[in-house]
Amino acid sequence: MEISEYFPVWDKLSTEQQNRLTGSAIRCRAKKGGIIHGGTEECLGLLLICSGQLRAYICSEEGREITLYRLFERDICLLSASCMMNGIQFPFSVEAEKETDFWLIPPDIYRRTMEESVSLSNYTNQIMAERFSEVMWLMEQTMWKSFDRRLAEFLLEESALEENSTLVITHEKIANHMGTAREVVTRMLKYFQNEGLVTLSRGKIVITDLIKLVQYSEK
Amino acid sequence: MEISEYFPVWDKLSTEQQNRLTGSAIRCRAKKGGIIHGGTEECLGLLLICSGQLRAYICSEEGREITLYRLFERDICLLSASCMMNGIQFPFSVEAEKETDFWLIPPDIYRRTMEESVSLSNYTNQIMAERFSEVMWLMEQTMWKSFDRRLAEFLLEESALEENSTLVITHEKIANHMGTAREVVTRMLKYFQNEGLVTLSRGKIVITDLIKLVQYSEK
Repeated sequence: MEISEYFPVWDKLSTEQQNRLTGSAIRCRAKKGGIIHGGTEECLGLLLICSGQLRAYICSEEGREITLYRLFERDICLLSASCMMNGIQFPFSVEAEKETDFWLIPPDIYRRTMEESVSLSNYTNQIMAERFSEVMWLMEQTMWKSFDRRLAEFLLEESALEENSTLVITHEKIANHMGTAREVVTRMLKYFQNEGLVTLSRGKIVITDLIKLVQYSEK
Repeated sequence: MEISEYFPVWDKLSTEQQNRLTGSAIRCRAKKGGIIHGGTEECLGLLLICSGQLRAYICSEEGREITLYRLFERDICLLSASCMMNGIQFPFSVEAEKETDFWLIPPDIYRRTMEESVSLSNYTNQIMAERFSEVMWLMEQTMWKSFDRRLAEFLLEESALEENSTLVITHEKIANHMGTAREVVTRMLKYFQNEGLVTLSRGKIVITDLIKLVQYSEK
């Protein structure tokens, strides 16, 4: 497996840029459960995922965690190269949820290439905007509005009422019950699904991890 | 006042790009207290501040506000052009804290120029990274760790003990008292200063808005 097959906008880079990336990227493997980036402000480099699954999260002082997002094959983790862009500086961690193969690209190499290539720069912009948006939404909903807790409570109550771990209910209906927009419900349910709490299918929500869902409802 | 004097990396743009920006940017003025961007997901365009002061903030459903950041002369507000980058989508508001002159740059024009110019693209990356980092830090500290509330409490207690609204204490000392890092204290005190709660000078903190500080401590 070559980096050329995984790196975004590879075809739009010059041969020199391609050689520079190939020559400097380090192939790494993280075991399941391994912590790749540790919450301090070290500047490890960019992670380009080849296979496996990573989870970026933040920790409170009491050790509670919030998952920011997950990274899969071909995803790039920018935040682990905080020094690359003068701005990014906040403590967060990256953990391998499955055995993960990735390339570690030195921050100075990526930065130099980005400063030369408008394609790479715009690509980087795009993924940063997506993460920014994702993380802002999540933090607003979870930390401020406690929508995760409220939704977990709602699902547990419904399940108790129906005496069934499978709920036959639309996202629209939940939104009406909770006085919010359908999009907000759908997005949080997807977050729950990624966290392993529920499984979603058309018109149905199956509670798959009751204990964890109860923990969410008691946050 | 010409846009050429305010627009970042102007000298690195081609004449065609410069003309495109000059020809499409709209000069606007917002009165003090005016809401420029309203929390919905409209895509207004980029704001390039000529003079004045803007405040970007989010609102909870109960109407509480958190200031995300302020924008001054020559600053660019990217978030008001959410459609420009497919990713950015979260509700926030922008208010003029002083009478503010700004250029409104249509999102498609900015995007096109950014896709052509590596200088503009990298500049955009840089400011997005800075805002991302700033906002993440703030949300972690305020929403999760309630460090704003705890610091407000600490300042009020100190002030009551000393019977004085001027506290002679270093940030280092506060950090030790509160079991955190000096940088965290300094950054939050600066946020308080921007919010008008305190005035900072070497080795001193003057409480300038007691009522608002009490409100913070009771959040």
